[in-house]
Amino acid sequence: MKQYLKLDEWNIIEEGFDPENHEISESIFSIGNGHMGQRANFEEHYSGRSLQGSYMAGVYYPDKTRVGWWKNGYPEYFAKVLNSTNWIGLDLEFDGVRLDLAQAQVRDFVRTLNMKEGYLKRTFTAVLDGGRELRVEAVRFVSMAEKEIGAIEYRVTPVNVDGTLKLTLYLDADVKNKDSNYDEKFWDAVSEANEDGFASLTVKTKKLDFYVTSSMKCVVTAGGRPVQGTADLLTAEKKVAQVLLVPASRGQEIVIRKYVSNVTSRDYGVAELFETGRKRVEEAAAKGFSLLLQEQAAVWAGKWKESDIVIEGDVAAQQAIRFNIFQLNQTYTGEDERLNIGPKGFTGEKYGGSTYWDTEAYCLPFYLSTAEERIPRNLLVYRYKHLEKAKENARKLGFAKGALYPMVTMNGEECHNEWEITFEEIHRNGAIAYGIFNYVNYTGDKAYWGEYGFEVLVEISRFWEERVHYTPGKDKYVMLGVTGPNEYENNVNNNWYTNRIAVWTMEYTLQVMKELEALDPARLQDLKTKLGLRDEETAKWREIIAKMYYPADDSRGIFLQQDGFLDKELIPVSELDPKHLPLNQKWSWDRILRSCYIKQADVLQGLYFLGHLYDRDTKKRNFDFYEPMTVHESSLSPCVHSILACELGYQEKAYEMYLRTARLDLDNYNNDTEDGCHITSMAGTWMSVVQGFGGLRVQDGVLVLNPFLPGHWSAFSFKTMFRGACLKVEVGNGRVTVTNETAQEVSVRIQGRDRKVAGHGALTETLAGAPV
Amino acid sequence: MKQYLKLDEWNIIEEGFDPENHEISESIFSIGNGHMGQRANFEEHYSGRSLQGSYMAGVYYPDKTRVGWWKNGYPEYFAKVLNSTNWIGLDLEFDGVRLDLAQAQVRDFVRTLNMKEGYLKRTFTAVLDGGRELRVEAVRFVSMAEKEIGAIEYRVTPVNVDGTLKLTLYLDADVKNKDSNYDEKFWDAVSEANEDGFASLTVKTKKLDFYVTSSMKCVVTAGGRPVQGTADLLTAEKKVAQVLLVPASRGQEIVIRKYVSNVTSRDYGVAELFETGRKRVEEAAAKGFSLLLQEQAAVWAGKWKESDIVIEGDVAAQQAIRFNIFQLNQTYTGEDERLNIGPKGFTGEKYGGSTYWDTEAYCLPFYLSTAEERIPRNLLVYRYKHLEKAKENARKLGFAKGALYPMVTMNGEECHNEWEITFEEIHRNGAIAYGIFNYVNYTGDKAYWGEYGFEVLVEISRFWEERVHYTPGKDKYVMLGVTGPNEYENNVNNNWYTNRIAVWTMEYTLQVMKELEALDPARLQDLKTKLGLRDEETAKWREIIAKMYYPADDSRGIFLQQDGFLDKELIPVSELDPKHLPLNQKWSWDRILRSCYIKQADVLQGLYFLGHLYDRDTKKRNFDFYEPMTVHESSLSPCVHSILACELGYQEKAYEMYLRTARLDLDNYNNDTEDGCHITSMAGTWMSVVQGFGGLRVQDGVLVLNPFLPGHWSAFSFKTMFRGACLKVEVGNGRVTVTNETAQEVSVRIQGRDRKVAGHGALTETLAGAPV
Repeated sequence: MKQYLKLDEWNIIEEGFDPENHEISESIFSIGNGHMGQRANFEEHYSGRSLQGSYMAGVYYPDKTRVGWWKNGYPEYFAKVLNSTNWIGLDLEFDGVRLDLAQAQVRDFVRTLNMKEGYLKRTFTAVLDGGRELRVEAVRFVSMAEKEIGAIEYRVTPVNVDGTLKLTLYLDADVKNKDSNYDEKFWDAVSEANEDGFASLTVKTKKLDFYVTSSMKCVVTAGGRPVQGTADLLTAEKKVAQVLLVPASRGQEIVIRKYVSNVTSRDYGVAELFETGRKRVEEAAAKGFSLLLQEQAAVWAGKWKESDIVIEGDVAAQQAIRFNIFQLNQTYTGEDERLNIGPKGFTGEKYGGSTYWDTEAYCLPFYLSTAEERIPRNLLVYRYKHLEKAKENARKLGFAKGALYPMVTMNGEECHNEWEITFEEIHRNGAIAYGIFNYVNYTGDKAYWGEYGFEVLVEISRFWEERVHYTPGKDKYVMLGVTGPNEYENNVNNNWYTNRIAVWTMEYTLQVMKELEALDPARLQDLKTKLGLRDEETAKWREIIAKMYYPADDSRGIFLQQDGFLDKELIPVSELDPKHLPLNQKWSWDRILRSCYIKQADVLQGLYFLGHLYDRDTKKRNFDFYEPMTVHESSLSPCVHSILACELGYQEKAYEMYLRTARLDLDNYNNDTEDGCHITSMAGTWMSVVQGFGGLRVQDGVLVLNPFLPGHWSAFSFKTMFRGACLKVEVGNGRVTVTNETAQEVSVRIQGRDRKVAGHGALTETLAGAPV
Repeated sequence: MKQYLKLDEWNIIEEGFDPENHEISESIFSIGNGHMGQRANFEEHYSGRSLQGSYMAGVYYPDKTRVGWWKNGYPEYFAKVLNSTNWIGLDLEFDGVRLDLAQAQVRDFVRTLNMKEGYLKRTFTAVLDGGRELRVEAVRFVSMAEKEIGAIEYRVTPVNVDGTLKLTLYLDADVKNKDSNYDEKFWDAVSEANEDGFASLTVKTKKLDFYVTSSMKCVVTAGGRPVQGTADLLTAEKKVAQVLLVPASRGQEIVIRKYVSNVTSRDYGVAELFETGRKRVEEAAAKGFSLLLQEQAAVWAGKWKESDIVIEGDVAAQQAIRFNIFQLNQTYTGEDERLNIGPKGFTGEKYGGSTYWDTEAYCLPFYLSTAEERIPRNLLVYRYKHLEKAKENARKLGFAKGALYPMVTMNGEECHNEWEITFEEIHRNGAIAYGIFNYVNYTGDKAYWGEYGFEVLVEISRFWEERVHYTPGKDKYVMLGVTGPNEYENNVNNNWYTNRIAVWTMEYTLQVMKELEALDPARLQDLKTKLGLRDEETAKWREIIAKMYYPADDSRGIFLQQDGFLDKELIPVSELDPKHLPLNQKWSWDRILRSCYIKQADVLQGLYFLGHLYDRDTKKRNFDFYEPMTVHESSLSPCVHSILACELGYQEKAYEMYLRTARLDLDNYNNDTEDGCHITSMAGTWMSVVQGFGGLRVQDGVLVLNPFLPGHWSAFSFKTMFRGACLKVEVGNGRVTVTNETAQEVSVRIQGRDRKVAGHGALTETLAGAPV
């Protein structure tokens, strides 16, 4: 836990430079636009500790697997997001002394992430040897309007001395990943171009042959007049640089504008890259920095109009929720169905930038509420496109049929390598099926079933069918040897959540089949033929549905996390000496495993997902049993607890859980923000507000709202898209108001009453007391 | 499986050179003497595939742990046996062409391991370019009489041409371990000496500062006359070499005798190493090769007198059992209580040469029967000396008291790093307690309890006390989250074997305490004070003993391997398509884990260890249940099944299991002999014969024999020491004869009847039918 950032509603602000915080800030102040992302590394040389990170979405490296002890079935590689060409680089030397904030005395340092308009700004005065002062103001962004463009405006003013400023503006692909398994560099040189005012660099990955061309145009003015003539053009393998010598007079501002395009072979033929990159960057330079920045602000204004959450009376909470929304929008725009959402987005290397079940379980609702329908739909299509790989994955693990989606993937292939997770954390398959339900339930887009969804559902159901088996001793089907979402248990039998989501998948698949039969029988017939779906299979699913074993404790009226859970010593976290926390840093793995403590409570996860199938008392009994043993050492845990707590009327608990998720990175809660921000859990924070405090659900095609106002806030409001409409929900002053920002009438079930909100109309109700 | 070796009762013989088999042969033809060991690498240069291996007992390297995903509690390093100075090196160049069996045409190649006299011999004719033939006969051994001495006699005869032989005799420490985690070299140079006829090299390990000095004296004759004058002395960092140019005439034999001493800082002060090494090697050279070899043969004659097993009518079985006995005697002599028995002995790097529970569970009985009492005693003292480290290990894992011995160790510290083994395979602690029981039961040396054993037992019992907990739902004590000896289950609850061995430890500790009370109350009081042993503790042990939970299936009358075992699909191995075997190569880890298949059956291991506590019917029911599901993919598995099968009268099964263990390496059964031989499982083979077919046990201080003769053999005999006596047991011709080779009378219970064998007497009985 580290709190060094200033509270502000629209900005993240760091005042004063402390090298100890720099890597954390590099994560937090990251910028991105879905196509690329950039950690808040300094443009100028910095010799202190830093994690360099320039990332291109979808460009990855299959880094050969490294393990202590090989297990049969491990994947050959771990797909890693690549640290790519450093395109921000801009070195300054003032009369022979290089500007380096690790060496200079730094005054008046302010770093600001302007979330409203989407740029990073940094101002400081550096005092070089002999007291020579340079005032710097640097602004940069990656454009949401022109996805391949990044732009930097870097202003330098000698405060108290004249001299010569030597500028080196460069592109450098001689970079590496800090987390490279075998300490290799991942890039090979392809070509360089370097001419007065323009340079270009093409590199390719050592494996998989991703090509990336970075091109730059630089415009320098001194005292408002263009600086002409490059002193030197330096070209080396994987590096191009341009050197300018600029006479610098005291008080006179030198402005460097660096425009960069980053284009990749994912979007263009290799032969087109150079010309495309050049064209893009020339267009950007012609447009100029100010106009590009105006466009940027305009796109962000649109994003905020769709997705902003306003919290009144709590600046820390307001800043936090906007930070989370900002980062989510920076990470995934939904424009490219080949992409997905990595746990660290573009803010770090860790977890490889790959896709986890986080997408379906936590991120999907955010995009359902805040983006056009095609955007969450693309997240689902991504999995459809990986279906063949998921089937191959199941075959590799010995299954005769069905599909097992990977735990971690970049291209559909598994790349995780801990047996207890890779092979056993198969509940992920259920989340992928649930994502389809969630999307269709929210949007009403039943066409998705016939187009993509049904095939995925059938293959997942087939996997479950083979993965369970009948055991005569119980006269039931069981599922042995799994790891549930609670990763503080490994290799358990009959994890309730996994058993339940498996059966639910089969139930939903059968339901979809029935609906398709009515909606589009010809398409269903085509699909059944394509899939070779036999009646014996669906009959088997029905049998499994009827005879699945669910561990439970009838005396307590709860579901059991897994077989044997009640044999554990059940001691609430509150009775544990806090010196033992966090368990994952203080306890050896076996001690965690055999304890009752829960990383994230998967019974509660199941009751959240399938909330429409369980009554409030069941939820309450299970919440009351599991919540006290949950240590929330997954960033994905508190949001679900917060939402359930809201539903159950546990207001203080709900707010406590909200706080654990909302400022996770801003306050470096888990002491790991330097590795990158927890992007996917940010979606969970959003859920805590909208589904938790807002009580938003969709049931039977109706938008349900059951809001309550946390005692610490005076009011809050959020937007949500729903089936073509956009609604604003405001909660405060004892009232809840729903405003329809679109023309079409919308049905809502607010505080239990069915109402209609007319096009461009609004309705207001008195805020009910929270349920007791 | 690969069968290329000739059958012979006393020798391992490879005829013809096939580079494909070379690495396997390098393992099988290894030589050792407890102090050092040497794979059967060629003396001369060899450019083909080879695993170089020269090992010094007790000299190891703490190689930084390498894992894919770090778990809290993992050790910092894995201790590895070190590939040390290549002392056998001897390069030959004949008129400018280097002798290299990967390049030359090789004729009449014969490699022989003479087990009776303890040396390795190799003869071949190499045809060099232009048809020039060299005849070579090379003999080498490491001396059992002079543990620091190795000697080589290398005879070369030009068959059909005259020329000049350039000899390079060297010591080379610029070597590395193939399994180095970070591809480092582990040795640093210290000093070199090089003078006519003598050279010395001292190196030290980069960590832990083990110093090793290797010294050589070389004597070369041509046609019987000494070759004088060294052409060149080459000294480099970590390498010394002497070059001789020898005129070589057709048909005239050149004999190179290379004497080497290897002395280490484990035995001498660093300052003494050079002089000691020089003295040793000069003494050896003065003695000469023939005399050294005579001494070697004499020591081996003594070993065979103590430990030989004779099998008649089955040369393959005879060769196999002698090979196993030979390798065990090469690996551990018991002279040095700081040493123990690595799973690969001196035959390879794998498993780090470290100590596992194999020692207590499988090796101890061999040394109890075939060596003086002090030798198995030293194996136990080894653990006593590690008690403080085992207590530290328990603290590291969060235990407030007690000792947890490591899974793998070199110096008492844990160095294994798979959580499911390192942290959970705690049954090893029980084996260490059982070793004490086994030793005292066999030898009657109850003084061991007071001297060393009781402290170890108390600390292990304390560990178990803390590791179990009471669960009200069962009104029992349970033990959650363990891995039993059957490593094809991980993280299970209530593994029967572990629960049982834990309670047995407490029972035995209380029994020892009671006996000590009678034998030496003062010592017991001292120990109780030293240990701070309180009455509440022993009372707690009694409570746990009374209330331990053991999973069982009453309808089948069997113990359950762990909770939930009967929920598995129970399909015998015989019904499994053989294409699935071995499972560990064909199935992914999760599939193995959730299957019923057993690597080694730990319920049966428990019934073997505690055979005196269970009746024959109980053993039979459990054997009948578990044996059919056991795949024996641990080299340690078949021996226990073989012994139990003998006891139960399953003669064919017993012989089948014997075959699986006896020729494991000679026939490369598991396709991994190139990594080294399975030394510890060789002790299991010995047990199959002596405890299985011989039916040897010790009960109530009496030697019990219940022999039967496998149908494939005409007779067999073995020796066993017992409480100062040495007995020879011969089985064949329908009779069993016990001959007492010592003066003292011995009581035996033979085929159920108590008899006495007079000093130097013998008794013969008709061999009973096997029990039905």
